[in-house]
Amino acid sequence: MTISTIEWEGDENGSIKLVEQTILPGELKYINCGDTKSIWDAIKRLGVRGAPAIGIAAGMGAYLGAREIKTDSSAEFLDKFDEALKYIGSSRPTAVNLFNSLDRMKKVADQSKDKSVSEIKTSLFNEALKIHTEDKECCRNIGKHGATLIKDGMGVLTHCNAGGLATADYGTALAVMFSANEQGKNIKVFADETRPLLQGARLTTWELMQAGIDVTLICDNMAGHVMKLGKIDCVVVGADRIASNGDAANKIGTYSVSILAKEHNIPFYIAAPKSTFDFEIQTGEQIPIEERGSEEVTEGFGKRTAPNDVKVFNPAFDVTPAANIAAIITERGVIHNPNTENIKAMLID
Amino acid sequence: MTISTIEWEGDENGSIKLVEQTILPGELKYINCGDTKSIWDAIKRLGVRGAPAIGIAAGMGAYLGAREIKTDSSAEFLDKFDEALKYIGSSRPTAVNLFNSLDRMKKVADQSKDKSVSEIKTSLFNEALKIHTEDKECCRNIGKHGATLIKDGMGVLTHCNAGGLATADYGTALAVMFSANEQGKNIKVFADETRPLLQGARLTTWELMQAGIDVTLICDNMAGHVMKLGKIDCVVVGADRIASNGDAANKIGTYSVSILAKEHNIPFYIAAPKSTFDFEIQTGEQIPIEERGSEEVTEGFGKRTAPNDVKVFNPAFDVTPAANIAAIITERGVIHNPNTENIKAMLID
Repeated sequence: MTISTIEWEGDENGSIKLVEQTILPGELKYINCGDTKSIWDAIKRLGVRGAPAIGIAAGMGAYLGAREIKTDSSAEFLDKFDEALKYIGSSRPTAVNLFNSLDRMKKVADQSKDKSVSEIKTSLFNEALKIHTEDKECCRNIGKHGATLIKDGMGVLTHCNAGGLATADYGTALAVMFSANEQGKNIKVFADETRPLLQGARLTTWELMQAGIDVTLICDNMAGHVMKLGKIDCVVVGADRIASNGDAANKIGTYSVSILAKEHNIPFYIAAPKSTFDFEIQTGEQIPIEERGSEEVTEGFGKRTAPNDVKVFNPAFDVTPAANIAAIITERGVIHNPNTENIKAMLID
Repeated sequence: MTISTIEWEGDENGSIKLVEQTILPGELKYINCGDTKSIWDAIKRLGVRGAPAIGIAAGMGAYLGAREIKTDSSAEFLDKFDEALKYIGSSRPTAVNLFNSLDRMKKVADQSKDKSVSEIKTSLFNEALKIHTEDKECCRNIGKHGATLIKDGMGVLTHCNAGGLATADYGTALAVMFSANEQGKNIKVFADETRPLLQGARLTTWELMQAGIDVTLICDNMAGHVMKLGKIDCVVVGADRIASNGDAANKIGTYSVSILAKEHNIPFYIAAPKSTFDFEIQTGEQIPIEERGSEEVTEGFGKRTAPNDVKVFNPAFDVTPAANIAAIITERGVIHNPNTENIKAMLID
């Protein structure tokens, strides 16, 4: 993977350069976002997607928000900056990484409140770049720790896309596969296509093929059958938000996969950085589930495939209970049988 | 449902009139099949689909095969008729109803071997019409027995399409819902879209909406989440082939749904006529699983949604073990906790 999903291009007057993910794998196109409206829009319509990448985009987006504020008064600046953060936060309310980044940016602004507006903006610029750099390092460490769970010859199932495109660099779930592959382990990956937006079909297969990893595309409803055939030795997926007790929200369908894995005695792993954990909430029941438009289901392929006026339920995420998760792979190490205590022990300093 | 999926139009010189199911619900179009090639093609490309409807099409197709044989020698006729039956049978090797119909047609031909070719053809014509009439009666009885399992206010999940379009008239799984609805029970149905060919999105929602039944479309990977939300009280699906012990082959994804139902303590019902049972095989492991072309997954809707040259696994069916099935609803009654003994007791005279 040498594709850079998200970069800051230029100096403080520059802009965000993004891979436009909605048109992959047909076309590899970059877009530039030079104001808050365009990055809000890119996050909302999944032009940029994947929890860590959204976190990076939000940090850079917050800096764009700061840059747009025209005042010399630091107090007025900080008020308006709060509004900008709220605006960015409204683009994807389920993504905790987004809010983590916004919190970091707010903290930097607050700590700089005695400085000039120009100096505050520079501090925010540096913080946004730091969020980006840290994410690259983080992905590599997730890959390194996760690869210890992967043996030569294993069949691995994954759902949605938690690859390089979802992060700064190397991915979370796919980082595990990239690392195992680099260590010379031959793995066979099965990728769920992941309806309605087909991130698995469009992105995961593409990234794995770029890395020369054996990948087979299946429809989501084939996962149980493939497990029954003995083709899967472990499941590795990403997460969008993890509660203190280990309950994990991820792309819709992940919960079903966790049940199928349990039925077939297959270990189910989540790969996610510390930034995905939301220690403010105790269990997954407190995670709000975003519902998206019906046209993603009824016209997902540019052609209507259901009757007009049919009712549709389109939740974008579901929550996998910690009890179904054999381990959570983080940049600090592997948390086996995750629960409130051992998650804290690994992640809280 | 007043749509007639399959009819014989005219006298012995007539043809099969079919609803072209691949373009529903966008367009309701009928096609005529007046020779074996065209009915073989309609079965193969799923223009006609659903186990009972395929059985009816196969019976009528076998008659078309008989009509095409040009000889006055009964012995020569019977030889050539065997070839015609083999040809029809090659269109959809998983569908046991297809072979049941072909067996019935063969039996009639063999019993008529001392008659003239013209008389044999008339006997075959009558048998094909009889298969059709019996199916209508059968659907109504499945509906009647199945409705006893449905209570007012229940949420019902179904997968694929086992409605009127799959049969002569009233469906198998959907017959249960139509009957319950006619009895004044309010039900809320969730229909899995059923990738790759979206029979649930295209056909099941359409049929239920025609009947005024409350139906909500979901993607296959949402079923577990919907169950967790408490919206589902039972699952009712059809079957393509059932082994002596109750193991049931049905559309890919059915096995996964059965596991999800078990996890949530939701009864999982199969609705299928006696003709779906294959008493020649003991367990589901003996059921061959048809694999279909990769383009159904990668280009399902006229637009490529995966990288070129990606490997695809596309099994059309899977097998749900009898242990996951709370009951099989047949035209003779409901078989609770199906196994070799109680299936025999209900179905074998």
